[in-house]
Parts: sequence; structure tokens; C-alpha cells
Amino acid sequence: MSLTVYRSAHFNAAHRLFREDWSDAKNKEIFGKCSNPHYHGHNYELEVGITGAVDDETGFLIDLKILKNIIKEEVENPLDHKNLNVEVADFKDLNPTVENIAVVIWNRLRKRIGAEYDVSVKLFETPRNFVVYTG
Amino acid sequence: MSLTVYRSAHFNAAHRLFREDWSDAKNKEIFGKCSNPHYHGHNYELEVGITGAVDDETGFLIDLKILKNIIKEEVENPLDHKNLNVEVADFKDLNPTVENIAVVIWNRLRKRIGAEYDVSVKLFETPRNFVVYTG
Amino acid sequence: MSLTVYRSAHFNAAHRLFREDWSDAKNKEIFGKCSNPHYHGHNYELEVGITGAVDDETGFLIDLKILKNIIKEEVENPLDHKNLNVEVADFKDLNPTVENIAVVIWNRLRKRIGAEYDVSVKLFETPRNFVVYTG
Amino acid sequence: MSLTVYRSAHFNAAHRLFREDWSDAKNKEIFGKCSNPHYHGHNYELEVGITGAVDDETGFLIDLKILKNIIKEEVENPLDHKNLNVEVADFKDLNPTVENIAVVIWNRLRKRIGAEYDVSVKLFETPRNFVVYTG
Amino acid sequence: MSLTVYRSAHFNAAHRLFREDWSDAKNKEIFGKCSNPHYHGHNYELEVGITGAVDDETGFLIDLKILKNIIKEEVENPLDHKNLNVEVADFKDLNPTVENIAVVIWNRLRKRIGAEYDVSVKLFETPRNFVVYTG
Amino acid sequence: MSLTVYRSAHFNAAHRLFREDWSDAKNKEIFGKCSNPHYHGHNYELEVGITGAVDDETGFLIDLKILKNIIKEEVENPLDHKNLNVEVADFKDLNPTVENIAVVIWNRLRKRIGAEYDVSVKLFETPRNFVVYTG
Repeated sequence: MSLTVYRSAHFNAAHRLFREDWSDAKNKEIFGKCSNPHYHGHNYELEVGITGAVDDETGFLIDLKILKNIIKEEVENPLDHKNLNVEVADFKDLNPTVENIAVVIWNRLRKRIGAEYDVSVKLFETPRNFVVYTG
Repeated sequence: MSLTVYRSAHFNAAHRLFREDWSDAKNKEIFGKCSNPHYHGHNYELEVGITGAVDDETGFLIDLKILKNIIKEEVENPLDHKNLNVEVADFKDLNPTVENIAVVIWNRLRKRIGAEYDVSVKLFETPRNFVVYTG
Repeated sequence: MSLTVYRSAHFNAAHRLFREDWSDAKNKEIFGKCSNPHYHGHNYELEVGITGAVDDETGFLIDLKILKNIIKEEVENPLDHKNLNVEVADFKDLNPTVENIAVVIWNRLRKRIGAEYDVSVKLFETPRNFVVYTG
Repeated sequence: MSLTVYRSAHFNAAHRLFREDWSDAKNKEIFGKCSNPHYHGHNYELEVGITGAVDDETGFLIDLKILKNIIKEEVENPLDHKNLNVEVADFKDLNPTVENIAVVIWNRLRKRIGAEYDVSVKLFETPRNFVVYTG
Repeated sequence: MSLTVYRSAHFNAAHRLFREDWSDAKNKEIFGKCSNPHYHGHNYELEVGITGAVDDETGFLIDLKILKNIIKEEVENPLDHKNLNVEVADFKDLNPTVENIAVVIWNRLRKRIGAEYDVSVKLFETPRNFVVYTG
Repeated sequence: MSLTVYRSAHFNAAHRLFREDWSDAKNKEIFGKCSNPHYHGHNYELEVGITGAVDDETGFLIDLKILKNIIKEEVENPLDHKNLNVEVADFKDLNPTVENIAVVIWNRLRKRIGAEYDVSVKLFETPRNFVVYTG
């Protein structure tokens, strides 16, 4: 019997889409207004899914208090109210597209969640634009 | 050609997380304020997914009027405005975590839906905490 | 220049609609399944509105960190994961309808918010059933 | 590394569920009020999912400006503010159930999206009734 | 003490914006694609607000079971799955804009709700376009 | 007969809460992490309300195509994907709190909307924190 538990979280951040090794013109051409050098930002809404077996004794798949703390430590603390390009080491050499942010979050969570679980990340950059990454 | 049709439903219920064979202290330690002996409650929002082939003649995968009635009989009638621990036999010896409630609902629906269909259940305990069970 | 700032919060609780001075039959007749003696429950979603003047210096109407703490102390701590009928003194002699819960919350907040502000409360008992109280 | 990007869109349309080769009585019996000869309508909300590899250089799975244009050309332009039965050739001999509309949209998008991607379509006929089609 | 209770409802309908006394060209110029002679449609989401005094005995402002029935009789039965222009007498000589539909609904409800209450209607034609009418 | 029509829009922007005439320590003390010198950002969701009389001939309160264009020119074009502190003249000497952004938007719209209408602005900085300004 396998089931997935989801927990929501959110963080607000500034970013720009940008490659240092590209000219300004090329950044503008490929990334458009998302490449604004003065940054723009989003309310990122996150749904973390943990798939595994339900514990017969507790009826829990995972203790959500523990999951909530892991999300706080690995996602909210390092990303909330931050400039992703400037202040978050994961994006030093990585363009902070919503795709790459989801992968960074998944990698951060994956190493904190037991191997008996699968991990998925759904990340909304806006209510109209979002990604799912399952590793 | 395989497709999934989803139908939403909802019910309000009281519950507590609790094991009779544990001490009060252990229930409190593991389940925290969800173990309040006087109960608390939720608006459970449910999405039932039915996967199968679309009928060439009607263009329906399943008649939603029939599905709606099955959900009413198997979920809304037995669970809505109920105390899950006290009044619902399925939870007599089963802790009513959102995981276990989803499995109970899936089992109830599975036996009413034809074998040519797969069944999935997404159950929101709150807008921020939900599970998916696919059997 | 007058403006309203809103802050959301939420709590989960059990309740029943019930008057002790009525017969069981009358409680059943007037309150229907909401009168279930074993209780049912809801995810209450709350929007608190504070109306007043924007401070020229800060650009804040009210410091939301302070408002958040007041809501925590006056609403979330006393009501979350509680049985409203049994555990909350405000409802000792008051039927916990969504109307009365909104008035109780408004009264609790009103006495903590400065007289230079107006206070409003929007309380969702379900996504389909909610009230607004402005005092 | 495989990931899915989702983009939302919407269109409003009239339709009726109806088979020309059935009697009025049979249409009424099977499709109920959805068979009203004068039509009714919906706000269809669409989520298009594109699954594939993230481009190392851009950090994009697919350029969303391009995807947005494809959705505009293949879905919004032909379906928005239209009568699906009368004005959209895809439904000349196909009953416009939400199942069939999703398949039509998927087929239209599939032929415009590169073979290195998988395509999925989630289509809401109402907030309470929706389908997912993945080909 | 005055409070407002809200109850949600919904209906799906086809319509076109159109004045019979205007030329096709003028209808097209003023109403654009909303004037499509073959109709289009919407999921109308309705919030009915009733303002008044809370009854000391019941804690109810109004019995929601009664309000629900009035909405069913005055709004859902006559408008759901209908073509507003063709099948609903209220729009025989009245253009079914969202403004006019809200006024029609308000008038229908107003005559069924006691004079001790105020009535308001919020009507969503789409999630992005809606009106409020308070008489 | 007076009615309000609402139209939604949205923009993404970076900002920081900050007064140039305050020390860094005081900015930090009053505005907390919202004062991050590297900026953070939000998806701002906007609802513009226009109150007035419904035109008997068209059934429109205001032509929404015109309103949509005004919102595009006065809000989306100047604010979307911008750094409010650095790139938007309105905030040169004005702290871009959600309160002040709402007032700026209202002033911009007010001067473009005819005097026969009232204007209101509801602005969400996050789904949990929003303001209403009516002038």
C-alpha cells in the first residue's frame, strides 16, 4: 500500500533570468522582461509530496511536524525574502528559472528525507505557471 | 486511449488522532494537539479520479450522475457531519489520520466501481495538507 | 485617506449547534445534522480587516507582525484544535454558529486594536458558507 | 532528469451533449439537461503540461512564450467564445463531452510540440468536474 | 448588531450579448465576440449576502436551508443549463450582460427575502470578471 | 440603480521596504526581512472595482475592453517585472508597502476613469495579505 502526503509552503523572492557568459542583448532576447537587471519577484507556492508506506501503528506516512521543519530549514529559511541570484549559493552558477528552483528544492529535500520515501516538488511561480519535479 | 475523470465532493467531520492501546501521554507526544480528547474537525475536500476508456458512443468515460450517487452513498452519507472516531465503524480500530481516511474512502469506492476502471482519491484535510491514494 | 489591510489566519475546530434548554427533538428540528451530539468540525478560514489611516513615515496602516500576534493570541491559541462547545468559555452559553463565532472573534480583536482603527471579520465555515461582521 | 512545466489558459464556450443519430428522447435520457437543444456553456480552464529535459544553457524546459502562442493558436483562437457543436469542425461528428474536448485539445497540441516532449492536458469544465488526458 | 451571511451557488448557461433593434454590424462593434450569434457560455458562480440581525435564540441570521431552497427556486432552476437569451423570460427584452443578470437575480431574491434583511449579489461571469449589486 | 464591476489583473515585481533617511538598523528594526537590501518580490493580484449606473442601452456599466486597456497602461506596463524602488518614479520618495502601492494604483486609475464612476482597488501582496483602497 503506497500513498503520497502533500504539505504546502511558500516563500517570496526576487530573481532575474540571466547568464553571465551571455551578452546583455542575448539575455534580453532569450529571457525578455524576466531578464530585467534590477530584478522582479514572485510569491512561490510549494507543494512537497512524500510517497511511501503508511505506518500501521500511527496511521502516519511521515510525521508532518518533522516534514514541516525540514521544509522550513531547507526551503523557507534559505529562500524566503531573498534575492535568489545574489544571496543564494545554489544559484551562483545556475539560472534561477522555475525549473531550476524546483530541482534545487528537490535536491535539498531529498537528502533530508529517508530513502524509503520518494519525493516530489510542485512549484508555482505564478498561479498560471508551475512545474512538477520528481527526481 | 486512457483518460481520467475527476469529480469533487466534500464532507465535514470531527475526529481525534488516538490509539486506545497507548497511554494518554504517548498519544499526546505522538499526535500533539490533534489528539485532543474533546475532538476537533475539518472540512474534507475530496477529488475522486476514475481512469479508463472513453465510450465511443456517449463520449463519457463514466456517467457522472452515477459516480456522484456512489460518492454520496459511500462517502457523504456515512461521513458528513459525523464524529469519525465514535460514529463510523471503519475507524473503530483504525486511527482516522488523513492517510487512513483516504484509504477507507478508496476501498469503499473501489468495490462499487467496475473493474475496467482504476480509482484514485485525493483528500484535503486542510488546503495545506492533503494526500493521494491510488490503491 | 482611509484604507483597509487584511490578514488571513485559520483554525480547525469541532462544534455542534445546540441549546441546552431545548429538547433533543427541537435541537434536531432546528439545527438538523449540525446538532449531532458527537460533534462535527470545520476548517475555519479567517480574514481580519483593519481600517484606518496609513502612517506617512512607515507606509504601514498597522504593523502586520503585531496584528499577526494579536490574531494568534486571541483566535488561534484559544480556538485551534478545540471543541468550541466544551473547551471555549465564550461558547458556554452561546450557540457556536458561524455568526456567533464571528462576533466572538470580533469582540476579542476589537479590545486589542487601537480605537483609531475599525475592525472587520470575515469567517468561512466552509468555502460555500461564510459571514462578515463589522461591529 | 525529467520535469513537467505547466501553463494555464482558458476559454468560454457553448455546447450541448447530443448525438444526431439518437432520438430526442434518448439524448434526453442519457445526457439529461446537458442535452438542452438551446445549448448551455462553461468557462473551460486548461492546464497544459510539457514533460522533458531541462536545457542546461537556458534552464528552460520549453520557451513558455512559444508554448503560450501554440495554446493561443490551437485552443483559444478556435474554441473561445464559440459554440462547439456548431462552429468547431472537430466536433462535427464528435459529442463535445469534457472527455472528448480534452482529447481534441491534446491532439491539436501534440502535433505542434516536439517529439522529445510528452504532453498532458487537464481540462476543467467546472471547478468540480475535470479530466486529465496524457495520450 | 448587524451581520451578513453569504451562501454560494452556481449555474452554467449559454448567452450572447445582443440587441434585436441594432444591426449585426453594431452588435459586433459594441459587443465583439460576446455577440457571436451561435452563443457562448459561462460557469456563473454566485454569492448571495443577507444582512440583518442575528436571532438571539438560534444564533442564526437566517436559516441557510431556507435560503438554499430560495436560491434553488429563483436562480438555479430557472437559469442552470439554460440559454439565457432564448429560454429565460427575464431576458426577453434585456441584454444578458453580467450586470443585468446580477440585477435580475437580486430582484428575484429580494421579493422572497423578508424586508428586515438587506440582500446583495456577487456574480462571477469568469474568475476574472465579476459584479456586485446591492439594490 | 448602482452596481460595481470588477476586473482582475496581475503583475510581478521586486521591492524592498526602506526609508533612505533612516539608518540601516532602523530600517531593519521596523521592516524586518522585508527590508533586505537585495530586494525580494511578489505576484501582485489586483481587482479593480468600478461603481456606477448600468447603461440602459448596452447593459454595460463600463466597456471592459476599455477598462482592461486602462489597467494595462496604468498598472501592468509601468509595474510588471519591475523593481518598484529603482524603476518606478511613483516610489522615488515613497516606501512601496502594499498600502502605498494600492494608493498609487488608485490615483493612476482615478484620473483615467470618468467622474461619474467610483473606483476601488483591492491588491493582494500574497494570498494571505491584502488591502482595499476606495479613495
